[in-house]
Amino acid sequence: MADKKMVEEITSMDVDFAQWYTDVVKKAELIDYTSVKGCMVIKPAGYAIWELIQKQLDERFKATGVENVYLPMFIPESLLEKEKDHVEGFAPEVAWVTHGGLQPLQERMCVRPTSETLFCDFYKNDIHSYRDLPKVYNQWCSVVRWEKETRPFLRSREFLWQEGHTAHATAEEAEARTIQMLNLYASFCEEVLAIPVVKGQKTEKEKFAGAVATYTIEALMHDGKALQSGTSHNFGDGFAKAFDIQFADKDNTLKHVYQTSWGMTTRLIGAIIMVHGDNEGLVLPPRVAPIQIGIIPIQQKKEGVLEKARELKELLGKSFRVKLDESDKTPGYKFAEAEMRGYPIRVEIGPKDIEANKCVICRRDTREKLEVSLDELEAKAGELLETIQKEMLERARAHREEHTYVAKNMEEFEKLFTEKSGFVKAMWCGDRACEDMIKEKLSVTSRCMPFEQEQIAETCVCCGKPAKKMVYWGRAY
Amino acid sequence: MADKKMVEEITSMDVDFAQWYTDVVKKAELIDYTSVKGCMVIKPAGYAIWELIQKQLDERFKATGVENVYLPMFIPESLLEKEKDHVEGFAPEVAWVTHGGLQPLQERMCVRPTSETLFCDFYKNDIHSYRDLPKVYNQWCSVVRWEKETRPFLRSREFLWQEGHTAHATAEEAEARTIQMLNLYASFCEEVLAIPVVKGQKTEKEKFAGAVATYTIEALMHDGKALQSGTSHNFGDGFAKAFDIQFADKDNTLKHVYQTSWGMTTRLIGAIIMVHGDNEGLVLPPRVAPIQIGIIPIQQKKEGVLEKARELKELLGKSFRVKLDESDKTPGYKFAEAEMRGYPIRVEIGPKDIEANKCVICRRDTREKLEVSLDELEAKAGELLETIQKEMLERARAHREEHTYVAKNMEEFEKLFTEKSGFVKAMWCGDRACEDMIKEKLSVTSRCMPFEQEQIAETCVCCGKPAKKMVYWGRAY
Repeated sequence: MADKKMVEEITSMDVDFAQWYTDVVKKAELIDYTSVKGCMVIKPAGYAIWELIQKQLDERFKATGVENVYLPMFIPESLLEKEKDHVEGFAPEVAWVTHGGLQPLQERMCVRPTSETLFCDFYKNDIHSYRDLPKVYNQWCSVVRWEKETRPFLRSREFLWQEGHTAHATAEEAEARTIQMLNLYASFCEEVLAIPVVKGQKTEKEKFAGAVATYTIEALMHDGKALQSGTSHNFGDGFAKAFDIQFADKDNTLKHVYQTSWGMTTRLIGAIIMVHGDNEGLVLPPRVAPIQIGIIPIQQKKEGVLEKARELKELLGKSFRVKLDESDKTPGYKFAEAEMRGYPIRVEIGPKDIEANKCVICRRDTREKLEVSLDELEAKAGELLETIQKEMLERARAHREEHTYVAKNMEEFEKLFTEKSGFVKAMWCGDRACEDMIKEKLSVTSRCMPFEQEQIAETCVCCGKPAKKMVYWGRAY
Repeated sequence: MADKKMVEEITSMDVDFAQWYTDVVKKAELIDYTSVKGCMVIKPAGYAIWELIQKQLDERFKATGVENVYLPMFIPESLLEKEKDHVEGFAPEVAWVTHGGLQPLQERMCVRPTSETLFCDFYKNDIHSYRDLPKVYNQWCSVVRWEKETRPFLRSREFLWQEGHTAHATAEEAEARTIQMLNLYASFCEEVLAIPVVKGQKTEKEKFAGAVATYTIEALMHDGKALQSGTSHNFGDGFAKAFDIQFADKDNTLKHVYQTSWGMTTRLIGAIIMVHGDNEGLVLPPRVAPIQIGIIPIQQKKEGVLEKARELKELLGKSFRVKLDESDKTPGYKFAEAEMRGYPIRVEIGPKDIEANKCVICRRDTREKLEVSLDELEAKAGELLETIQKEMLERARAHREEHTYVAKNMEEFEKLFTEKSGFVKAMWCGDRACEDMIKEKLSVTSRCMPFEQEQIAETCVCCGKPAKKMVYWGRAY
């Protein structure tokens, strides 16, 4: 069965989920490894997903008044050092440029790991009066963090992202923007990526270096591990004070601005793979599928088959992203390839179908097949893509519900993290010591204090002291 | 006249063109300077132009089969060194990363000044058979070149661009793609940016490091200086041999691939400014104007004025990119600001206009005013934008024709470059010594050997030996 060769080379996700993931990113041709350790090539099939994410996220940003800008990729060391917590958080993992051309630099610069300090330096000169506020800027770029262990999309030394950086006249307005962007991220994940997320606040231990509050959306992967999928930070006026960003308010007094930042990355592609993929490969939600419909001719050398297939491509191509596979591979190989690459719908058309004025449609997500009259194909394909998008979200939500557990005490908590894999909801006293202990003992971290709080117990799952918050705990990527 | 303040601060282009340029980029809020020497912030008004360039160029790319990818921003030194001419050309102007986190790197890496070497390293693993060809990949990213003297958009240490890199089975196919992309660049400049260009080939002296042939499009700025606006390179199989990129051809023999690369940059924004701008500021061609129509209410506090202005915004916003200025600045200030920022059309609407069911439209390019019935506004605005786009190209072409001269001998050549400013067409023997002498004596370089050759004289303008080619000469940015 040479036709099945490309599929048989995928490790089953139940045998070794990490290897399955690596197999999928390689076999679906999303990435390639490079001579640059820890950095990847994002190949056309992977980059096209990112383009669809970018386009739809950017439209949502702009609808809320975001404007795009571009700032330098380098940060002089003295600039990075201006905010104490921030430099402590990032200095250990930046790449340093020490020479420009043949000359050593007077001051070394790092490649941006994130651009708070550059935006502050810019805002300091750009903001003078309340009339200049708010600033709601975003940039699409790549950033570098010198990670020791890397994995395609999930953790690499260079990754693509967007980083929004805003400045406001009041603390309230900054907090409102922080939450607004978190909500935007959550709806984007659910509506576009078909990934349900838990919205909440990070603990002090897990928050961003330099932030007053970090909010997060957390998704659950197929293997029960958590993936932080987007974060939104409220900086208060901490950066503004460190960088001296002041404005003359309406009352003619000088005040510091309040700032936020928020980001999403190519990591989302990793989330799509690990939430929706199966043992046949990638399964793409229609809204981010570069190819939504793959047309595969059967007995394509027979008269009229390719002509009809091209006609269908022409027809469907008006409304959808369509690919017709005219190569000389066998239909079986083409089926396996279409499945591996995650096309939401496959259309099969052969001589007998043409005679009967019909074709066969196969859903990638359920692998269900149905016969459709060619006259109804366009309408039916549109409906089906909608249905697939909706049902993929429902299935992902059901999976998450099934893998979200409750622990009232440490015994239950440990048992769950030993026997099961998923989110565990449990109460917490608010002390970092308990988080540290849980991490050390079980490699489990607090994912977030969800906005939707529940009173599961009276006491902290770890120390037994009075509980302050219900927390989602999990093992994370 | 406080209203005119922002305009009066611009230096006249006839007094000091360089200062006029700097004033426009700053006052139209396209860029800001940064603490990172030689790097700029591209502000919303500037970045929005780049987004429109990107979108329209990317669509044209994809229509020719280009696929987008993303490669690492770092190049290990050993990789950069693989192609001899290439490393000699770029090593003196790259930024070197020597430390990752707290550790020195085993091998230093430069930040990409261009990505030929990375694409070769990738293609070496990705191309095996003739079935894998052609590869027609492109990436949108930023690159770094450690320039000593920098100017916003025209020459900065970091700039944004696209770089296409292709691999082909035959030399003919590579040459055809090289020319195809040059033609695409030329039509893009003319149709979208309203900038006419001369297409031609670079001399050996001016060609890209590592290329067999470099083709270029050259535009003429308002001050008579040339701007290289896009280049397309044919590498032959030189890189393929240096990097050992081979494929099994249909005849089952191993062959080296033939490669090309081609790029356009944020420099195009500098070209737009210097071709179309005037003493009131920026003049944007409608197709790359982030705001195509600026609506300015007159006596906006009078009843009904703002309501009507908003109604017009709603109406025009369906087909065009529109901004309504509701701020409390005076109309005169708003006019000056709309002119500075180069909105192609300004719509003025006041109480008397409303009474007469009309408004005043002002063209930015000619500053011509006309009265238009509100019932015809949408149609008229659409027509006018088309007209402006077309006439801007015609004016730029006429300017170039007026500033393109012919020199038959060195006396005429010197006189032209002393008294005039523009392109000079003159014959050349093909020897580098003549180019070197002309550059040293007059700071003039060969811009290109145009595809459309003319026989101006029999002998080289410099040495008097038999001429081989007609060359466009100029002083360049």
